[in-house]
Amino acid sequence: MKTINLLNYAHDNWVGASGGLAEVHSAVTGDVVALTGSDGLDFKAMLDHARNVGSPALRKMTFHERAWMLKDLANAIMARKEELYELNYATGATRTDGWIDIEGGAGTLFSFSSKGRRELPNQRILIDGQMEPLSKTGSFVGQHVWTSLQGVAVHINAFNFPVWGMLEKLGPTLLAGVPAIVKPASASGYLAEHAVRIMIEANVLPAGALQLIMGGVGDLLDHLTLQDVVSFTGSAQTAMKLQSHPVIARESVRFIAERDSLNASILGPDAGPGTPEFDLFIKEVAREMTVKAGQKCTAIRRAMAPAAHLDAVQEALSARLAKAVIGDPRQEGVTMGALASQAQLKSVREAVATLAKSARIVSGDPETSPVSGNGAFMSPILLRSDDPWGSAAIHDVEAFGPVSTIMPYRDLDDAIALANRGMGSLALSLFTFDQKVAEEFVLGAGAFHGRMVILDRTSARESTGHGSPLPVLVHGGPGRAGGGEEMGGVRGVTHYMQRTALQGSPTVLSSIVKQWLPGAPKPEGEIHPFRKRISELEVGYTFATESRTVSLEDIEIFAHFTGDTFYAHMDEEAAKANPIFDGRVAHGYLILSFAAGLFVDPAPGPVLANTGLENLRFQTPLYPGDSMRVTLTVKSKSVRNEEMGEVRWAVYVYNQKDEVVASYDLLTMNVP
Amino acid sequence: MKTINLLNYAHDNWVGASGGLAEVHSAVTGDVVALTGSDGLDFKAMLDHARNVGSPALRKMTFHERAWMLKDLANAIMARKEELYELNYATGATRTDGWIDIEGGAGTLFSFSSKGRRELPNQRILIDGQMEPLSKTGSFVGQHVWTSLQGVAVHINAFNFPVWGMLEKLGPTLLAGVPAIVKPASASGYLAEHAVRIMIEANVLPAGALQLIMGGVGDLLDHLTLQDVVSFTGSAQTAMKLQSHPVIARESVRFIAERDSLNASILGPDAGPGTPEFDLFIKEVAREMTVKAGQKCTAIRRAMAPAAHLDAVQEALSARLAKAVIGDPRQEGVTMGALASQAQLKSVREAVATLAKSARIVSGDPETSPVSGNGAFMSPILLRSDDPWGSAAIHDVEAFGPVSTIMPYRDLDDAIALANRGMGSLALSLFTFDQKVAEEFVLGAGAFHGRMVILDRTSARESTGHGSPLPVLVHGGPGRAGGGEEMGGVRGVTHYMQRTALQGSPTVLSSIVKQWLPGAPKPEGEIHPFRKRISELEVGYTFATESRTVSLEDIEIFAHFTGDTFYAHMDEEAAKANPIFDGRVAHGYLILSFAAGLFVDPAPGPVLANTGLENLRFQTPLYPGDSMRVTLTVKSKSVRNEEMGEVRWAVYVYNQKDEVVASYDLLTMNVP
Repeated sequence: MKTINLLNYAHDNWVGASGGLAEVHSAVTGDVVALTGSDGLDFKAMLDHARNVGSPALRKMTFHERAWMLKDLANAIMARKEELYELNYATGATRTDGWIDIEGGAGTLFSFSSKGRRELPNQRILIDGQMEPLSKTGSFVGQHVWTSLQGVAVHINAFNFPVWGMLEKLGPTLLAGVPAIVKPASASGYLAEHAVRIMIEANVLPAGALQLIMGGVGDLLDHLTLQDVVSFTGSAQTAMKLQSHPVIARESVRFIAERDSLNASILGPDAGPGTPEFDLFIKEVAREMTVKAGQKCTAIRRAMAPAAHLDAVQEALSARLAKAVIGDPRQEGVTMGALASQAQLKSVREAVATLAKSARIVSGDPETSPVSGNGAFMSPILLRSDDPWGSAAIHDVEAFGPVSTIMPYRDLDDAIALANRGMGSLALSLFTFDQKVAEEFVLGAGAFHGRMVILDRTSARESTGHGSPLPVLVHGGPGRAGGGEEMGGVRGVTHYMQRTALQGSPTVLSSIVKQWLPGAPKPEGEIHPFRKRISELEVGYTFATESRTVSLEDIEIFAHFTGDTFYAHMDEEAAKANPIFDGRVAHGYLILSFAAGLFVDPAPGPVLANTGLENLRFQTPLYPGDSMRVTLTVKSKSVRNEEMGEVRWAVYVYNQKDEVVASYDLLTMNVP
Repeated sequence: MKTINLLNYAHDNWVGASGGLAEVHSAVTGDVVALTGSDGLDFKAMLDHARNVGSPALRKMTFHERAWMLKDLANAIMARKEELYELNYATGATRTDGWIDIEGGAGTLFSFSSKGRRELPNQRILIDGQMEPLSKTGSFVGQHVWTSLQGVAVHINAFNFPVWGMLEKLGPTLLAGVPAIVKPASASGYLAEHAVRIMIEANVLPAGALQLIMGGVGDLLDHLTLQDVVSFTGSAQTAMKLQSHPVIARESVRFIAERDSLNASILGPDAGPGTPEFDLFIKEVAREMTVKAGQKCTAIRRAMAPAAHLDAVQEALSARLAKAVIGDPRQEGVTMGALASQAQLKSVREAVATLAKSARIVSGDPETSPVSGNGAFMSPILLRSDDPWGSAAIHDVEAFGPVSTIMPYRDLDDAIALANRGMGSLALSLFTFDQKVAEEFVLGAGAFHGRMVILDRTSARESTGHGSPLPVLVHGGPGRAGGGEEMGGVRGVTHYMQRTALQGSPTVLSSIVKQWLPGAPKPEGEIHPFRKRISELEVGYTFATESRTVSLEDIEIFAHFTGDTFYAHMDEEAAKANPIFDGRVAHGYLILSFAAGLFVDPAPGPVLANTGLENLRFQTPLYPGDSMRVTLTVKSKSVRNEEMGEVRWAVYVYNQKDEVVASYDLLTMNVP
């Protein structure tokens, strides 16, 4: 691999540093593979470019347009993934490790693209929750909305997953309509730089949407404002330094941190040797120690077992770890590669030395390289502490490599307390086949953990594992882990948006959120709405039906036809005795069916099918002799593609006294 | 009023300070009304008491139990409200001002009590969002949940609303199951102390749930952990000092701040003199300047109007402000009382002097007291800036009193930019009858504002006004306003809880969240579930029906009976041409009706009524000749009171190939 001169991407151009280049070494051979630096960049100008060019362009797009853009980016990464795998080896990672990073990264973009199209509107404003009535007659109401921040997301990433770590932040950021400035870690920055190159060459991003800094960030933080977000992944020390920057507190800049985490894995009290859960536990701890040479924020650092089973755990784990094949990750059969750099190796050795003061090494040798040459290789190190409350280091010192400590617990409360002694973690796994144990653990340790995986014989085969953050689930943890939250589907998108409580008339709020709200006008027209394509349907457009009387005979016929002879419909005396009814009432499904009979326009047209129904509430009983009429109002609409789209209708069924009998949202599939 | 010796409430006891008492003066007469201090308290021990006694007791209760407790507290305040009104006058507040504080505070507790019972489960774990499928066959899934933080909420409150300011934080905190330590501001602390006394004497709070510090907080912050929350309302300067405390960053302590805010009110371009919106604007600006003598975080500090209308605005506003009757708030006819203290008066005068360097005073005299004696009285001060981009102070200096600056804008973009120049505000109001103007404003200024009120002739009569935070809406704002969020119904409760992504089998996750999740077991029994009371129904308990064939004749009968002759049911050729169907299909409502016919057990019993339906999706068309069968599964249940409760059933309709035809949640009202 020849030495690469890494470039920054600023103002939509690739630019080299003016000087001060640093050498980046191969984790496997120690050779210089890249030169990197950011001297000479005008960071203030980069922020301004993102704010003045990237932000308006992204904010003009709808969520769906941005979601399609993410899909294009993911496809571009996948089409050129082999270029990334080729660079990946120099970081010490195996192809399997690289898969998590590269295809895992693209998969995260795909996931956000899909969530964006399925769960977000084809609009620029996102509604949050239900309309809140704020007045007696309903002329003044409240509605929460999310709008895009108008600033920049500054992503400061860790070295361990240069592609995934970048894309898991970029996905929600771009979907939110916010431009990003990315600063990868130096040790593996060449992979991030190449991934950015692929995305820029895909030519789908608006100008100013993405910029890249391949070195220090200079005075960038000094110029942040309330519209910006800093999202940091890395050590607690650096996180605290960044968070203490006076601009962060002064401007209330959002600061999301994902930092140290001494994740625990617990063997349940029920899961002794011989149980499937015991075997699953051993397998998972060993896997988490060796994948990516243990350089994962979510890796298991503390493995806990009932005191009686600790010897068995040690034996089984040691045996399994001994099978790891350590070496050049390009070599066939190698299962564990190198640490990212000599600096990283040194730091892990120091951490192990600290741990070894109060725990003893029972497997592996931290000081002897298992592979000759200049690579940053290390064998998996298993430590054991028999007095876990007597050692602070095993709960406080994160050895960011293939290192884990096993320890005993007395009972469930002790196990929960030990897990929480991590003072806030990203991930916890619990191996138990006892639901009560699982529930106790969630109640006792939930507040200390961002993610908890409960594994047993029924779920382990399909499990995504202890250490895998998923785009649809939140990733982050309280306390030591940084207090941040990333991803989690739409949750992660809102990290880059502002929630605002809107108040006003239902009319004006409807026009803003592009959704009919109760109390807003319901204009009627000449044309039945089933005769209009989605593009012709205005939000609020309403069809008011004729009225129809519901007779006792109707109820009788319906009951015997459907088989629904519930006493409230059939037996006057029994119905009267019911606390809700004054006598026999019409079936709810009869009301729905008659409503459709009243509003449906039967001939073929733009409405293709009734696909569903939501939020149905029966509000006033309908008695024999009552009449019913219906209003059908366009609540919202969303075009899915050129063939189809969805229309949501607000349906109200009234009786002859204009009381609401039933209200619901009707969903139909329509022609755009 | 005789001088009160204020006490702290620590370890469930009222305790005096060991020394260092400060004098608190009446805002109206200058007399000493109270002595206050916290010297000698053991703050670490108070935290421990809350953690070790208050937290476990509150966490043992369900959301509903905590919600009832809030109702009891609110009732206690209301029963003794006159005691609070009596103290209220000494703060300089009128009875109307006091109403906002005292009854507004109790109303906030009532609102959280009501939301807690209607929107939260009668459980200790709160489900967040839908289950996420994570595997092919569904044996491994994800579900986000919220659990209570296990620490303490430290509430540091402002002087202006000693009761409401305390209760708007206490409501969501206690509902979340978290104990609180409250530190009121000294100037009006005697009101907060008395409100705490009323709540303690109501005897509904568990030990350790509430403690009170009537002076400095000493070394309290040094002992905070990841499980604690600091919620601060006050000046930006103090907020930054607190936020910079090293423990906050090190332990990732949640820090919620509500600080300075130069809220804007905008007269729309369409709202010239003579329009109802013009009059509403004048009325609202004047009201916000005089209510509570302008000492509201949400008060209008910047009033903007189209340049052509600024003279008219100045004239109308000055005339209205001249009508304010300033004086002793106990006196009949007084509409505006005193500032909270002489110190506050001095600080407002200094701020006005700064503002007056680049804006001119057009109404009122800041230096001359409008009332003789030692009270902290000040007349309303209206300033005018004709060059709003030439003055930084009018956007940056918050004069926390009856002070506002009027200024012109050129066009809508300029108005948006000026509003945003506040660098983050709690509230904005816009007076317009033009929907387009409102939409542009939300898109342009939403990201800078926590709440935006759009007022016009249709909504103003019922409006709660520019300055009123409401318990069901979020209160807070980005940037200068602190970046915090409070209240907003359930949103505010989650500020005191931790979100955790759970992963595992649907079986184990169901047992934890007490809700049946797709893929969890569906055990059947001898007894039809309609024959069981809520207390006898187990989550997951299932009734599987017989199968029934749906004939073309059924479809014909249903169509003619209901009137729903949509072509997809009636016309084979036309149905085939539809991209979704292969021929005539059964009506969705026929499927729902037949499903009920299959699962309903008709005789009187614990099921009282079908109250609604949610999340219905028709997934596979049902063709003539197909058969259908149904499973009815207890998804969740919630007892409302001794007479009634709600059961949510997961209903699945299958065809003869075991494909899901339709799925939905059915809601019934049942006997507990």
